[in-house]
Amino acid sequence: MAQNSSTTHTGTTGSGADDGDSADRRAVLTRRGLLGAAGAAGLAVGAAGGVFGRAAAGDDGAAPSLGAASVPFHGVHQAGIVQNQQSQALLVAFDLATGATRAGTAALMRRWSDSAARLAEGRPATGHENQIALDAGPCSLTVTFGFGASFFDRTGLAAARPEALAPLPDFPDDAIDRSRSDGDLWVQICADDALVAFHALRVLQQQAAGTASVRWQMSGFSRSPGATARPMTTRNLMGQLDGTNNPRASDASFAAKVFVPAGPADPAWMSGGSYAVVRRIRMLLDNWENLPVDRQERVIGRRKSDGAPLSGGTETTAVDLARQNPDGTLAVPADAHIRVAAPAANSGATMLRRGFSYHDGFRADGAPDAGLLFIAFQSDPLTGFVPVQRKLAGADSLSRFLRHEASGLYAVPGGAAPGGYVGQALLES
Amino acid sequence: MAQNSSTTHTGTTGSGADDGDSADRRAVLTRRGLLGAAGAAGLAVGAAGGVFGRAAAGDDGAAPSLGAASVPFHGVHQAGIVQNQQSQALLVAFDLATGATRAGTAALMRRWSDSAARLAEGRPATGHENQIALDAGPCSLTVTFGFGASFFDRTGLAAARPEALAPLPDFPDDAIDRSRSDGDLWVQICADDALVAFHALRVLQQQAAGTASVRWQMSGFSRSPGATARPMTTRNLMGQLDGTNNPRASDASFAAKVFVPAGPADPAWMSGGSYAVVRRIRMLLDNWENLPVDRQERVIGRRKSDGAPLSGGTETTAVDLARQNPDGTLAVPADAHIRVAAPAANSGATMLRRGFSYHDGFRADGAPDAGLLFIAFQSDPLTGFVPVQRKLAGADSLSRFLRHEASGLYAVPGGAAPGGYVGQALLES
Repeated sequence: MAQNSSTTHTGTTGSGADDGDSADRRAVLTRRGLLGAAGAAGLAVGAAGGVFGRAAAGDDGAAPSLGAASVPFHGVHQAGIVQNQQSQALLVAFDLATGATRAGTAALMRRWSDSAARLAEGRPATGHENQIALDAGPCSLTVTFGFGASFFDRTGLAAARPEALAPLPDFPDDAIDRSRSDGDLWVQICADDALVAFHALRVLQQQAAGTASVRWQMSGFSRSPGATARPMTTRNLMGQLDGTNNPRASDASFAAKVFVPAGPADPAWMSGGSYAVVRRIRMLLDNWENLPVDRQERVIGRRKSDGAPLSGGTETTAVDLARQNPDGTLAVPADAHIRVAAPAANSGATMLRRGFSYHDGFRADGAPDAGLLFIAFQSDPLTGFVPVQRKLAGADSLSRFLRHEASGLYAVPGGAAPGGYVGQALLES
Repeated sequence: MAQNSSTTHTGTTGSGADDGDSADRRAVLTRRGLLGAAGAAGLAVGAAGGVFGRAAAGDDGAAPSLGAASVPFHGVHQAGIVQNQQSQALLVAFDLATGATRAGTAALMRRWSDSAARLAEGRPATGHENQIALDAGPCSLTVTFGFGASFFDRTGLAAARPEALAPLPDFPDDAIDRSRSDGDLWVQICADDALVAFHALRVLQQQAAGTASVRWQMSGFSRSPGATARPMTTRNLMGQLDGTNNPRASDASFAAKVFVPAGPADPAWMSGGSYAVVRRIRMLLDNWENLPVDRQERVIGRRKSDGAPLSGGTETTAVDLARQNPDGTLAVPADAHIRVAAPAANSGATMLRRGFSYHDGFRADGAPDAGLLFIAFQSDPLTGFVPVQRKLAGADSLSRFLRHEASGLYAVPGGAAPGGYVGQALLES
């Protein structure tokens, strides 16, 4: 399993000085006391919960410090894939500058990897001691890097571009804004504190100066730790539980679905890597909220309150697609989202979804500019996202309430070892 | 002191069903266990910390559930003023529809007040059982209502408009976008979970249909609970501690500075109310981050690490404006922000600042569209915000790094009693 698979809790509270008044000192001591009690509980959660290393209350009820929780940057896989969603996400795409070289790009990836590793430990990035998010620890910060198809042309590596990075097909009803899509480099920054995430974004942006500039940036959110007792699934802006059918790290097939295996058919530099599909999906919330709950549930195929499939059971009960109501109709309607999207209906295709809600104010028509920053990791988008979306687009009854407005596909290399950097095997090949 | 002055913790976890798998059940039980232990600690914090009722770890180290923490809507003052910042804020201004009546507006304020009170308790709003933020409790939700100057003309209440709502003067270097300023009605929604805040916004927007529509909306954030050990001050996007010099609820003069007293000079319906100044202040972060830390500190007049004034001591030490360095120069420079803004330099003027950071992506020039949603509550803006900003604008060295881009001034009536609604004394006068 990945080295970076479990959240660790250290006594470090970042580099901020804690020499304030006595109330501050008391709080620090209290937190350190908490950490002592929570260390064992945190490990126990890690063991029971597999690679989902999100800081969580242990069985003894002691909560680890949100600020001190950390996710190691180094490992077989990059951080920010198997971890449960943090509460804050900043997605940003960069384009390489005209004339950027392979060597210059490699140097950037080394700087970025070094900074991501240091910030994930709550240390200031080299050359960026001028910090923003003082006082806090790493707050479970993860930084994940990906390469878009255009990256390979720009760096003279066109021959190394994986076949899996072929452009996604156009789907019915897509309304893609290319200026908010694609990009040479993609970075996913996640943390449980917005200032920690913002600081990481500023560091990476400044370190890219002269080599790459921001193409687009989007901000998302998930539930705050402690807001709800559901550890594995979140709710989207439609109020629906999301992530119920995600592959679990404890599944025997998890790695094969999410990570690129070593083998002659795959570029060796992608070993331990994954492919990320990113879609900005606006929700037509005015229409959705006008639907009574029972109709919303038939659109999804699950109960809104607890996520149980309409065929019965609880959230984690497998859906019974054949089940009929007493009147002979299908319990899960023919065009319900979970029927059309079900792996069983798509040759077993699956992916790890790790999306965040977004809300960017209101549009000129008075509707909220809000929805889902859909992020899915998979070992191969041609057997993961593509066939599922091809079936869904315009076909499931949920698609009437959605507009796909931006799209990206990125090769996310495997993780770096200490002293190395993400993409090294490609850029130094 | 206000009825709604202390955070309470109930066993309610909202209306979400918790009949999921065993892991879910265990978490719920753990949380309920926590609540039992945290009830007393929460009350202890309330007693020691005055009216700052933010959910916080008690001295025994037991953290109350973030989701279950609640702030009562009803009270002498509206909620969302004396409470420390929650991690999420949605600011929204509404304009009344053409032909809106005083009776229709009163009905809206009654609907809104009823919903705000119910949501603050973790209950669904009447007629809006179609919830979004299921599973979570109220997450310290507060909803605060204000009336802009234009509200009084639109409702036939021009004679009742307080003198304090006279338009703010133009300040040097202001670059105000009026389309994102002002508004008949202003609502401040704060919570420790973004989905809870979003749900409240959608409920209020739907309940306004036909009576008022959104004029502008802005989203802000503060530190996540548990991210840092500092309970009273936050950090802004410049990395500076903010709020150090705020009046404390335990100060004898607190109420006089923040809340409108009863008296012949003030409209009676504003008794227990306050005036809110709202400014969207963009920070020129590229310029700021290029300054070495010691120069940043001389711009502010405080150490970045711990907020201590450059005249010495800790964050809470009173600044000694006369103190000199060994070379005879002023320890706090002549144009330092805290010198120019110091109450002692402004006839004792003061206000309760309760701002949130914002970050809305990047501008066309590559700079972040980011800064501070400045919110200040005061008993009279003509002795609070106006003289301070008049001195600061273009004069303190911090103003070179700021652009005021939106502005609003609102009368925030006193709180409602159960069965009443905010603004009732005005609208039924």
